[in-house]
Amino acid sequence: VDGTLTEAAQAHLDDLTKPRGSLGRLEEIALQFVRATGCLKPVLTKKKICCFAGDHGVAIEGVSAFPAEVTPQMVYNMLSGGAAINVLASHSGADLDVVDMGVNHDFPETEGLVQRKVGRGTRNIAEGPAMTEAETLIALMAGAGIALSAHEAGYHLLGTGEMGIANTTPATALYAVLLGIAPETIAGRGTGIDDQRLEHKKTVIRRAIEINQLHCGTPLGTLAALGGFEIAGIAGFILGAASVRLPVVVDGFISTAGAVAAMKLCPASSGYLFFSHLSNEQGHRTVMESQGVRPILDLDLRLGEGTGGALAMHVIEGAIRIYNEMATFSSACVAGKEGE
Amino acid sequence: VDGTLTEAAQAHLDDLTKPRGSLGRLEEIALQFVRATGCLKPVLTKKKICCFAGDHGVAIEGVSAFPAEVTPQMVYNMLSGGAAINVLASHSGADLDVVDMGVNHDFPETEGLVQRKVGRGTRNIAEGPAMTEAETLIALMAGAGIALSAHEAGYHLLGTGEMGIANTTPATALYAVLLGIAPETIAGRGTGIDDQRLEHKKTVIRRAIEINQLHCGTPLGTLAALGGFEIAGIAGFILGAASVRLPVVVDGFISTAGAVAAMKLCPASSGYLFFSHLSNEQGHRTVMESQGVRPILDLDLRLGEGTGGALAMHVIEGAIRIYNEMATFSSACVAGKEGE
Repeated sequence: VDGTLTEAAQAHLDDLTKPRGSLGRLEEIALQFVRATGCLKPVLTKKKICCFAGDHGVAIEGVSAFPAEVTPQMVYNMLSGGAAINVLASHSGADLDVVDMGVNHDFPETEGLVQRKVGRGTRNIAEGPAMTEAETLIALMAGAGIALSAHEAGYHLLGTGEMGIANTTPATALYAVLLGIAPETIAGRGTGIDDQRLEHKKTVIRRAIEINQLHCGTPLGTLAALGGFEIAGIAGFILGAASVRLPVVVDGFISTAGAVAAMKLCPASSGYLFFSHLSNEQGHRTVMESQGVRPILDLDLRLGEGTGGALAMHVIEGAIRIYNEMATFSSACVAGKEGE
Repeated sequence: VDGTLTEAAQAHLDDLTKPRGSLGRLEEIALQFVRATGCLKPVLTKKKICCFAGDHGVAIEGVSAFPAEVTPQMVYNMLSGGAAINVLASHSGADLDVVDMGVNHDFPETEGLVQRKVGRGTRNIAEGPAMTEAETLIALMAGAGIALSAHEAGYHLLGTGEMGIANTTPATALYAVLLGIAPETIAGRGTGIDDQRLEHKKTVIRRAIEINQLHCGTPLGTLAALGGFEIAGIAGFILGAASVRLPVVVDGFISTAGAVAAMKLCPASSGYLFFSHLSNEQGHRTVMESQGVRPILDLDLRLGEGTGGALAMHVIEGAIRIYNEMATFSSACVAGKEGE
């Protein structure tokens, strides 16, 4: 982070024809984008959302309201353009790739599908580690590679998304261990489970943490034991993007688990992240507050796929356009604040 | 409001390939748009923001950080494309009109400027009524006419904006009287005044309310005595739009004063309003809470011009696109929630 760069960007913002600071978070976002990219004249036109999909062995414990077949079904829905993320990515002008990190189904080669399958679903975290450390590293590398390809293809902003029935369970277990939060306080209803199933989900999460205790000595070990292929893919995607100073918009509850894993593996990656929205999934607020983050939007979304990230891209792009396109006081012949 | 229409729209939302209610406020927004327009298949492509400008006699009391000449200077800045609202209107794909409701300056005929001048600035509310009731009615009619023209031109969504040095002072006075809120609790720093000037502003507002007490027996009388040409223009714009079921996105602190006046004049107009953002201007939160409204965005903006409304248009349009474009469970062959 370059002090001179920040000062120059701030001076530019203060010279735009508006009272100082009156564009609030838009100004903060523009500053962060400048710092992240290192460009005093930032460019933001090409955007891509990568939706990482994976299945979870723990689904067999009955922790979700939907059956596991829905993971591949929703991947097909995304590939044919019918899912929420297709609509919102298109609305934000972002390209969309669906990445098969580990769905329990073999997809034919399809436009828009990136094949990076590490396995056909993880193992059941209630009985042992979800992945080996080797599998986890492969998933991290796969995610990083996708970010690096996007960088080479000229993208200026990436967004995370995910699809994976039951994945709020591993995400909650990861938060509990990586951040030291009691899992009962952050376990939520996911796709919409009832009270009884929520109690059961909490029990499963506690069991998963207990049984994997010995594997959780490091961030990588924790990610392997309690994570998932798509969550590790997201963590790698973030690390790869950060390595080339490419900012990433983080979607909701699951994507944030990938982001927390990335920040535990490499704390400097946090400067490249825009947390898009406060999820309605119970627990996301606690996690965001623990990281000192105030997400950009708060729209009660709890869908994932990258939907909140797609919406936040409008705000981020607006911030960069403000920074780049507004007139300055001198150029527009507008009088400044009295006494300045 | 048609119960069958709401039920049909809700049933459609519940059939989209996502857990029920998982798109939170996007679903609420789509429902409100359907109810407001009466269209079960809503269309939202053409959008327009109208930025109402006016000067205020009370500026002479020294209640603003900027001199009154800035009102016409900023109108020129908007007409040449350099203001924040130009950038954000363009970003949201909205057309922009600047409406001269009562600036203390004669503008040449210019593309993008709508001439509806009722006077060259209002009178000083600290000494008596800002406007006569006749002037106020003319301003209301002018605003309504602009909304009706936009309706005829095929716009599907309108946005309010304003420019007028010193206009947080009349807006605060209006809130105090129309909503029965102590003005000290909602008077804020506007474009950025210091503590001393803020105390002075509060004294001026109290004096304005006291001196105009006899004129404030009705909403119209209050709007005339304590409002402004651009605030009355916004109120009329909302009433005109509501009369043809055209939804309006309300910007921040000043625009909301126009909206509150409209709702006091005609309570049914509230169903057509989307409150775009929670302004960073102290007092807006109190006002929003008094109306039971949770604005769409919360980005610490305090600029006005329509900037928050322009950003919220992205979210509203996203909601309508979700409603119109997503696949349904049956069409996409996706399994539903277990037990449903």
